[in-house]
Amino acid sequence: MRRTVRTRVRRFDETGLIDARADSLAGEEPLEVRLDGEQFTVTMRTPGDDVELIAGFLLSEGIVTDWKQILRVDFSTGIDPDGTRNLNVARVSLEPGTWDRERYQARQIYTSSACGICGTASIEAVQRTSTYPIVLDAMSDDGPVASPAVTSRAVLTLPDAMRAEQKLFGSTGGVHAAGLFRLERDDAGGIADTAELVAVREDVGRHNAVDKVIGWALQEGMLPLSDTILQVSGRASFELVQKAAMAGIPVLSAVSAPSGLAVDLGREQGITVIGFNRGTRLNAYSHHERIV
Amino acid sequence: MRRTVRTRVRRFDETGLIDARADSLAGEEPLEVRLDGEQFTVTMRTPGDDVELIAGFLLSEGIVTDWKQILRVDFSTGIDPDGTRNLNVARVSLEPGTWDRERYQARQIYTSSACGICGTASIEAVQRTSTYPIVLDAMSDDGPVASPAVTSRAVLTLPDAMRAEQKLFGSTGGVHAAGLFRLERDDAGGIADTAELVAVREDVGRHNAVDKVIGWALQEGMLPLSDTILQVSGRASFELVQKAAMAGIPVLSAVSAPSGLAVDLGREQGITVIGFNRGTRLNAYSHHERIV
Repeated sequence: MRRTVRTRVRRFDETGLIDARADSLAGEEPLEVRLDGEQFTVTMRTPGDDVELIAGFLLSEGIVTDWKQILRVDFSTGIDPDGTRNLNVARVSLEPGTWDRERYQARQIYTSSACGICGTASIEAVQRTSTYPIVLDAMSDDGPVASPAVTSRAVLTLPDAMRAEQKLFGSTGGVHAAGLFRLERDDAGGIADTAELVAVREDVGRHNAVDKVIGWALQEGMLPLSDTILQVSGRASFELVQKAAMAGIPVLSAVSAPSGLAVDLGREQGITVIGFNRGTRLNAYSHHERIV
Repeated sequence: MRRTVRTRVRRFDETGLIDARADSLAGEEPLEVRLDGEQFTVTMRTPGDDVELIAGFLLSEGIVTDWKQILRVDFSTGIDPDGTRNLNVARVSLEPGTWDRERYQARQIYTSSACGICGTASIEAVQRTSTYPIVLDAMSDDGPVASPAVTSRAVLTLPDAMRAEQKLFGSTGGVHAAGLFRLERDDAGGIADTAELVAVREDVGRHNAVDKVIGWALQEGMLPLSDTILQVSGRASFELVQKAAMAGIPVLSAVSAPSGLAVDLGREQGITVIGFNRGTRLNAYSHHERIV
């Protein structure tokens, strides 16, 4: 039940063994989530921030929209082979009426009557369940402006700012991260030229890192996250844009490439999808009007 | 239904917009797999090699062990909103008696009577379902040697050799890959100093890339893959070591870090888990005796 585990590693170069030494690796353990007494999901995750992970996942799945709907998360029933307790079983109690298992399962299949299952249906499924529509324009003294508007300079600082806080990456060298940045503007409707890191979370799974950071914001009562940018360490897949959409995050910035469907969902949901943000250059794939 | 999609991208540096141009992104579409008439799973994948993807997934999940058990995969029922057919619904018919849904679902929860759910139970679940035990020692004229034995020099060539064949990465810059390499030895029981790339597959999801390459090998009748190395482009998670174990692959090499549980599973299953293979150096985390 640790974020990191110690192990012995042998380093080789092309001539053979260099040395053997102790090393740290990211922890990975299964987490079983039971929802109102029924088995709901099992995910492999790095232990830690588990309540946030569950809250973010339930929000991303469209099951909860408010922290108050999560009445109780009970970790008391997990047990290791040596008899010590572990935190790998979470029994979640939701406010009565919060979700309907059958409707949820039907929705999960991403089908629509138009196409059965296809990218378009996947996008429609997000649109149907999203609670926080993302606003594209705001009014300023000079007329409508992109909401929010942010300088490319500010966005380019995000990977390094997040990296500086990636403690697990620092010790293990191989774990994903998600960072939530709040845009700082001079005045209402103005352009943000800096962004403050408000939370960073790490996990062996990149979707888990995003769930943890969004779950934290849900707990803090910050939703919708309409004045923030979500920075992620890897690729921008459909699933990550979906999570941003469910939390009302208008800008998703990734270090690596987005997929085609991630960009399509960004366009439909009013989200600026940024890829290849490497500190000196970035690519904007949708709603680039927010970048000034 | 394409491996790549064209999009318009705007490049920015810290002074603002540089240019707008056309770009290629990796395709991502949902694939619904129906097993003997029942909904089984939905995965987001890059279209292409879908039969291999399904075959590799069914093998990884312990549902099939032989290509012949997959009687038929029918893609005829998918349809796009504009009325054209798509390949997003796969109806799989298995040989009668191949699997039992209830037993499968019970196993999926990674529980054991010893600990409910924990890393140890996850490892035991793989051990219970694995068809191809991995042999650690073989006999040579000089007594027992590691099986297979391979030079560090050969392993260090794998990332570049795979990269040269990553066509989708070349055009999109952001997609995972898995490559299967066959070890080439001078004589039986000898040490392999080269490895030949026999298949590479790419996908937006790294587990999908591995399923595709293992599914290809299943179709070719190559299992167990006891004389191969699996090279992956990203991290080595528990799930990827599980897939190697199910296919009888003795060496998994990753460009990035493994997780703690991935290394534990490698130790238990006799798999050499290699991380940070960057072409000049590599780290061996388990069963390093194979690297000479």
